Amino acid sequence: MAITVAALAEWLDGQVLGNETLLIDRAQSLSKAGSGSIAFFAGTKVAGLKPVEGAAILIAQELSGLAAPLANERCAFIVVKHPKEALIRVAGRFTPRRARPEIGISCHAYVSATARVGKETNIHPGAQVGAGVIVGDRCDIHPGAVIGRNCRLGDDVVVYPNVVLYDDMIVGNRVILHAGAVIGADGFGYRTVGGRHEHIPHFGTVRIEDDVEVGANTTIDRAMVDETVIGQGTKLDNQVMIGHNCEIGRHNLFASQVGFAGSVTTGDYVVCAGQVGIADHAHLGSRSVLGPKAGVHGDIPEGQRYVGVPAVPEVECYRSVLALQKLPEMRQQFRKLERQVAELAVLADQLRKQIGEAEVAESRLSVKEAVSRPLRDAA
Amino acid sequence: MAITVAALAEWLDGQVLGNETLLIDRAQSLSKAGSGSIAFFAGTKVAGLKPVEGAAILIAQELSGLAAPLANERCAFIVVKHPKEALIRVAGRFTPRRARPEIGISCHAYVSATARVGKETNIHPGAQVGAGVIVGDRCDIHPGAVIGRNCRLGDDVVVYPNVVLYDDMIVGNRVILHAGAVIGADGFGYRTVGGRHEHIPHFGTVRIEDDVEVGANTTIDRAMVDETVIGQGTKLDNQVMIGHNCEIGRHNLFASQVGFAGSVTTGDYVVCAGQVGIADHAHLGSRSVLGPKAGVHGDIPEGQRYVGVPAVPEVECYRSVLALQKLPEMRQQFRKLERQVAELAVLADQLRKQIGEAEVAESRLSVKEAVSRPLRDAA
Amino acid sequence: MAITVAALAEWLDGQVLGNETLLIDRAQSLSKAGSGSIAFFAGTKVAGLKPVEGAAILIAQELSGLAAPLANERCAFIVVKHPKEALIRVAGRFTPRRARPEIGISCHAYVSATARVGKETNIHPGAQVGAGVIVGDRCDIHPGAVIGRNCRLGDDVVVYPNVVLYDDMIVGNRVILHAGAVIGADGFGYRTVGGRHEHIPHFGTVRIEDDVEVGANTTIDRAMVDETVIGQGTKLDNQVMIGHNCEIGRHNLFASQVGFAGSVTTGDYVVCAGQVGIADHAHLGSRSVLGPKAGVHGDIPEGQRYVGVPAVPEVECYRSVLALQKLPEMRQQFRKLERQVAELAVLADQLRKQIGEAEVAESRLSVKEAVSRPLRDAA
Repeated sequence: MAITVAALAEWLDGQVLGNETLLIDRAQSLSKAGSGSIAFFAGTKVAGLKPVEGAAILIAQELSGLAAPLANERCAFIVVKHPKEALIRVAGRFTPRRARPEIGISCHAYVSATARVGKETNIHPGAQVGAGVIVGDRCDIHPGAVIGRNCRLGDDVVVYPNVVLYDDMIVGNRVILHAGAVIGADGFGYRTVGGRHEHIPHFGTVRIEDDVEVGANTTIDRAMVDETVIGQGTKLDNQVMIGHNCEIGRHNLFASQVGFAGSVTTGDYVVCAGQVGIADHAHLGSRSVLGPKAGVHGDIPEGQRYVGVPAVPEVECYRSVLALQKLPEMRQQFRKLERQVAELAVLADQLRKQIGEAEVAESRLSVKEAVSRPLRDAA
Repeated sequence: MAITVAALAEWLDGQVLGNETLLIDRAQSLSKAGSGSIAFFAGTKVAGLKPVEGAAILIAQELSGLAAPLANERCAFIVVKHPKEALIRVAGRFTPRRARPEIGISCHAYVSATARVGKETNIHPGAQVGAGVIVGDRCDIHPGAVIGRNCRLGDDVVVYPNVVLYDDMIVGNRVILHAGAVIGADGFGYRTVGGRHEHIPHFGTVRIEDDVEVGANTTIDRAMVDETVIGQGTKLDNQVMIGHNCEIGRHNLFASQVGFAGSVTTGDYVVCAGQVGIADHAHLGSRSVLGPKAGVHGDIPEGQRYVGVPAVPEVECYRSVLALQKLPEMRQQFRKLERQVAELAVLADQLRKQIGEAEVAESRLSVKEAVSRPLRDAA
Repeated sequence: MAITVAALAEWLDGQVLGNETLLIDRAQSLSKAGSGSIAFFAGTKVAGLKPVEGAAILIAQELSGLAAPLANERCAFIVVKHPKEALIRVAGRFTPRRARPEIGISCHAYVSATARVGKETNIHPGAQVGAGVIVGDRCDIHPGAVIGRNCRLGDDVVVYPNVVLYDDMIVGNRVILHAGAVIGADGFGYRTVGGRHEHIPHFGTVRIEDDVEVGANTTIDRAMVDETVIGQGTKLDNQVMIGHNCEIGRHNLFASQVGFAGSVTTGDYVVCAGQVGIADHAHLGSRSVLGPKAGVHGDIPEGQRYVGVPAVPEVECYRSVLALQKLPEMRQQFRKLERQVAELAVLADQLRKQIGEAEVAESRLSVKEAVSRPLRDAA
């Protein structure tokens, strides 16, 4: 299933520099590319771009002129609008997706007699579907997945192995739940009575809207009352934690290991980088961005980029970090300045004495104090 | 199963303002409340309190007088001692807990012939119970849960789906293990021999005392020798990590994504907010509180609140954060002060010259140096 | 199976102080040790070392002379080269590893007809092995583990309960995957088209080399193209996250809750303490060490120890932390210095007037400004 550079370029609406007749049979990353590979060059500057013998490299149009002298009979460049997009297309051509297996309801799955399962849905061996569950059409419920009582799943949902949905969860269409995700465990709420923490019962549920993706081993807790909501099109990476009664807006992106305490709300198109933590009842405005490891309590305004712990606007944080890095040097300069002022005070005192003390009696400066006050420094 | 506001108020020992005859059939959060709902108002100030048409709102006694003018025939307030507690009671009334199913030992579970299972205990389909295991009465071992050899579980234990207990774990009464929790994996201990990390065998176990709750996808590692201990009544949220040989005291509360390295000990009633990290061999004194994202190595005294990385007493941290935020401004003022001192030095030098240099020769101030020393600043 | 102190000492090549005839039957930690225990003392200073009645304590050779006076007929010390190593040996003697059960392919496992399983390999009940999978010799595939299509596992691999391997994973010899680990979920990559995040298909795989250990509930994402790689002998603790296309070198050690974004590369013998976060495309040089909670973007040089967010060389970080802690005090001193300079300026002005203003007219100092400029401080 090898294909010539010329044919690939035509399919991608690209332009070839170098040898059009090279045969390509796989997509790779540039650092791994060898004879027969196609890869892409991420940059827009020619520095770092090298031909690879026997391989085709997708490059951006800006580089067309600069790359031309590098091309020769032993290699090729293909100039396209979006090199990464083009590589994804080519990779898909060389690695066709496997067809969905036609399993239907496996006789080794445990499906309640009161569950309703849609057309062309696969329930794999070892999966469990509880009483009163409704599963839509063309879903895949993989091995070891457990769907609690009265859950409702839309169409085209993929539930990967060992996912757990507690009772009463609501899952929209085209949702993907990656392996080990846990949806609907009780929220972390206690009242302390007589020295013991009593669990506050959680009567609410979780609603996952259409086109949401949930990463591996991510956890989303059920609400105390009402619903914890993951809005349409939002994507959660692996090991994310969403607390009870959070209401996450649409098209949010949360990277790995992000943690939301209870009752947090977000607007649309919010982005959280890895390991961000949000305290309870905070609100993240639409299109706000939280940098890696940021810690938030309180509200983040729309469209702002915040970083740090506690999170502040990015520009402020960088200024503080810079100032902090220069602080040790500033301390040395400060000590020097203190010495100078003390010396000036001595000098002024001498001058004053010479001129005659009576005339400057109103001065409040205590020279003694200035001289005897060294910087108390244990460093 | 709708009920009048008057009847609810009597049941809750509360007092009605507004329409006693409204019919209520569900508990909701205030922001979602509509006709037929009951909700609670969290605040103690009347600002923000609005009646909801057709709904009853639970309010605190402090608000009784202030809320009265807001009540009318189309809505109701119910004045109670603890509005949130009252809502939880009402929610429980409208959403009765499902009865435990009577499954017994499912024929689709894998239970060793040498395991002993108590009365009224359910072993769900797909659960596995290893050789020599003892399970108490009225336990629920949910689908996909795996109980390793020789584990001992008390009475009324709930093991949610896909929990894993390695061999030899000890679990007390009324313990709840949420889905995906892993109890008893080997501790992360290696010795490097000839450039290879050799695993240190872990012969110890984990002991989880009575009334402990363990969150979804939380992990607790087994001890090298002896036991990793989770003390009575302690509650761990989702995605918490407890390292080998930790000894956690009683009634601790650890929020989500908290991580404990090995051999950490804690007193009683310790609280860790989300994403806290504790280095190995640290000790957290009883009733100490660690703020969100705090990083601890060393010991935390009893009853203190620590925050930051490395964690310091909260008041110190806030002072430092404040000072840090003002640092860029302070740098500007510092540069200005340096200029002033330099100018003063020039002035003093001139004065001295006029008065006669001989008389002030002992002054150590080098004017030249003062003037030529600008703040070295790359900012 | 109790054994005398004399016999244990001979076996360990150690020397006894105290009673050689005590009978020992178990290994414990020192704080738990009692009659019949053997434990080890970690320190090299005699302070804190106390004999335990009826128990043997392993101590280092440096302590031999100092411990001698503490020994008597009711207790014993055993002097050895490496007390902890010795305890591990003894613990292994008292707690022999269970023999691997001879399960073979359980009739309650779901093994594809096209899978190939090696000699003496156990496939436990409830485990699933997909089409085209190759499993080597002497492997243990525990209950609830799911091995996707076309995975290849080497010899002596242990896959603990409820581990998930997506399709096409490659696993070397002697690899240990702890419970709940998820290998090969899609990377977190999206392109935003018309306001919707479209998932970038991930055609690559994960390759786990020989002697790697993966902690409980750890997640490793598959590559977009090519492979995500975990190099030979590398050990990942629990709840670690490795993003798509990372290439981790050999013999790395990553503690719990460490997170790597996509396309990170590392050299050999890299160490990451708990809760470290690494941004995408960073490189960690061989033998570099990242302190707890460090946040990295960019590259870390070989052999360096970095800490903080953003991570800086350890010595710089400590200097900044120290300076920050002293900052509030420095602010007070700074305000005092400002007052002194203002007073000096007043004094100088007076002196100048007395001497005659004409002679110092070139001075640029504005006394008024100096006096009227208090530190703007909201603290």
